[in-house]
Amino acid sequence: MNYDQVFDSAIERLHTEGRYRVFIDILRNKGAYPNARCFAGHNGPKPITVWCSNDYLAMGQHPKVIGAMEEALHDVGAGSGGTRNIGGNTHYHVDLEAELADLHGKEGALLFTSGYVSNDATLSTLAKILPGCVIFSDELNHASMIAGIRNSGAEKRVFRHNDVAHLEELLADTDPALPKLIAFESVYSMDGDVAPIHEICDLAEKYNALTYIDEVHAVGMYGARGGGISERDEAAHRIDIIEGTLGKAFGVMGGYIAADSRIIDVIRSYAPGFIFTTSLSPVLAAGVLAAVRHLKASSVEREGQQAAAAFLKQAFADAGLPVMPSTTHIVPLMVGDPVRAKKVSDILLAEYGVYVQPINYPTVPRGTERLRFTPGPAHTEAMMNELTDALVEIWQRLDLEMRKAA
Amino acid sequence: MNYDQVFDSAIERLHTEGRYRVFIDILRNKGAYPNARCFAGHNGPKPITVWCSNDYLAMGQHPKVIGAMEEALHDVGAGSGGTRNIGGNTHYHVDLEAELADLHGKEGALLFTSGYVSNDATLSTLAKILPGCVIFSDELNHASMIAGIRNSGAEKRVFRHNDVAHLEELLADTDPALPKLIAFESVYSMDGDVAPIHEICDLAEKYNALTYIDEVHAVGMYGARGGGISERDEAAHRIDIIEGTLGKAFGVMGGYIAADSRIIDVIRSYAPGFIFTTSLSPVLAAGVLAAVRHLKASSVEREGQQAAAAFLKQAFADAGLPVMPSTTHIVPLMVGDPVRAKKVSDILLAEYGVYVQPINYPTVPRGTERLRFTPGPAHTEAMMNELTDALVEIWQRLDLEMRKAA
Repeated sequence: MNYDQVFDSAIERLHTEGRYRVFIDILRNKGAYPNARCFAGHNGPKPITVWCSNDYLAMGQHPKVIGAMEEALHDVGAGSGGTRNIGGNTHYHVDLEAELADLHGKEGALLFTSGYVSNDATLSTLAKILPGCVIFSDELNHASMIAGIRNSGAEKRVFRHNDVAHLEELLADTDPALPKLIAFESVYSMDGDVAPIHEICDLAEKYNALTYIDEVHAVGMYGARGGGISERDEAAHRIDIIEGTLGKAFGVMGGYIAADSRIIDVIRSYAPGFIFTTSLSPVLAAGVLAAVRHLKASSVEREGQQAAAAFLKQAFADAGLPVMPSTTHIVPLMVGDPVRAKKVSDILLAEYGVYVQPINYPTVPRGTERLRFTPGPAHTEAMMNELTDALVEIWQRLDLEMRKAA
Repeated sequence: MNYDQVFDSAIERLHTEGRYRVFIDILRNKGAYPNARCFAGHNGPKPITVWCSNDYLAMGQHPKVIGAMEEALHDVGAGSGGTRNIGGNTHYHVDLEAELADLHGKEGALLFTSGYVSNDATLSTLAKILPGCVIFSDELNHASMIAGIRNSGAEKRVFRHNDVAHLEELLADTDPALPKLIAFESVYSMDGDVAPIHEICDLAEKYNALTYIDEVHAVGMYGARGGGISERDEAAHRIDIIEGTLGKAFGVMGGYIAADSRIIDVIRSYAPGFIFTTSLSPVLAAGVLAAVRHLKASSVEREGQQAAAAFLKQAFADAGLPVMPSTTHIVPLMVGDPVRAKKVSDILLAEYGVYVQPINYPTVPRGTERLRFTPGPAHTEAMMNELTDALVEIWQRLDLEMRKAA
């Protein structure tokens, strides 16, 4: 057994497919985001504009968030020092869970160290608590949901993306006596489309299935108080478990679920990924608390984001760039292969100071490699016009396919 | 299918066994740790002393750590805004990985959102990259290692705790052509004993197995620079992968592995738990960077912790309390059942302002429920004498078993 050889060939495969990842080394400029400095591969920090951040509403630099984190840092210190059960349950955690439960109109909420962990831990634990559980999973579900479902050992039935007819077919074909869980997302982050929540809930009621929705690309951004698509569509009360993140629109880090007290208590008590890990730093919890409270009351950020996304989509379309048909704040531009997607991204960074990461397999299916832009309230129209011009120049230089006429 | 009923009976089982967990709601007092305030179940915040934190060296309140976090907060903002590959790779991450690689004398390091995730993601990915891999696992390995091994789908062979003869038996009994990985901890956190690293490495060499050590309860605390037991025992160069945490002795939050560049690149490129998650907040990374650098140069904290642990063990033993034979900074006191362990803990908190969490199944085997004290450089001899007196009073009140004479 030659271990080095095995590892070398695993890496070689990535190079061959043109999807070996090089991390861009940056520091964002607080107070001036989306401006940032780029390090690696350049002589000293070079100014760039960030176009691919999931700090969608720039809450990561909001004075209330920064102020709350600074206060917590000086009041209680850096880390929690323990698991939630052993010394790591601070008053910030308790308050934040209450705030998140309220955001979604649920009895309780539970914090995790990340959205990934919240999906993995909750789905894998739920299915173990419900012997024989069958999980119905949208084919485009995120890697963390797939991990949770796989780790649960439950039977998985994959339905075609957002296809409720196919979902019903699979439900009808499953033993009515078995426990069932339908797992899906509200906003699919790489395409920017939205799930038909009510139709899925109708099926859940008809076939007595639990529902689990991943709202990580929606919380803070949709609904009057930022409760996500389930709030916007007035469907939150029909969903059993709403999962969200603290690291995107809320600008900090961490994940959570909101549900009735019974489910929260079960996950809290049985999920190893919740129990056996140091809890979120109280500094992070304090920052998120400020962000959630702010976005419950303020819609300026949401409106600014929607306006920016609409402007950029239109600018791309008008310029003939192959913008994909997103119905949300996400603006994906199709390239179709990993090598050219990386090439466009490299030129943008080196020549235009524009940072947008190419999105490759396994994040998206092979052959659908793309650039994914996330304009927000801090991206100006001037920036978006410049970006569009840059892309048109590169598209022509590399002889890439333009948008087909409608 | 009545879901509520299934959930209710899952919770009922915990009540019946006396191991339903109630989280103690606290805020630590930065600058005055181990002093803290306790909320739930009391009228307003009540002062307490924390005896069960894994902020072992009180680095969570160290001025260098706090200062570095404050600076990062104001320079770059709250969160990273993305995965390491998509917008979330900051210069703090790059510097911290270099610092951690240096700490362990390895070519590279890789950050994760927690120690739990680093174990789960690394072990499950390694075993998938090495088809047919057999994992040899110490029977007392942490839940996160068990999760990673299980999620890998690899064959697992459990050896008796720290029993190298048994490990060799299992290795000799396994096809020499198959890839092998020996996974173990350096300090076992609930008993406080230490693995025979060199003997395990001897076997790894003899049977051509990779070695994976979990040093989460040792990094920062052992070795001249805080490189853990593998540094203290001059064995780091013999270990393939060293895993550690940023949330215990380093006082903040997060996890990591250190290894040669090849292994780091493989995990970086293939582990879903690394790829598909928002990276550590740069604020946390900045704090850890300060903590690691400080503890590389300063041994005062380590010496203070060892002195406190030795003092407390002796005080417990002299008082006839059933202190377990730990050889590290961990001071466990055996109770032997969950109900009485909780009772002692409740009295300590309510009557003495002492916070120490009872440790129950599944964290420790049933019948070995205990209290686990983690005295550090900030716990004074006066505090430890008072604690000992309180325990003796409660031990007598509840008629608990005293220590057997040696």
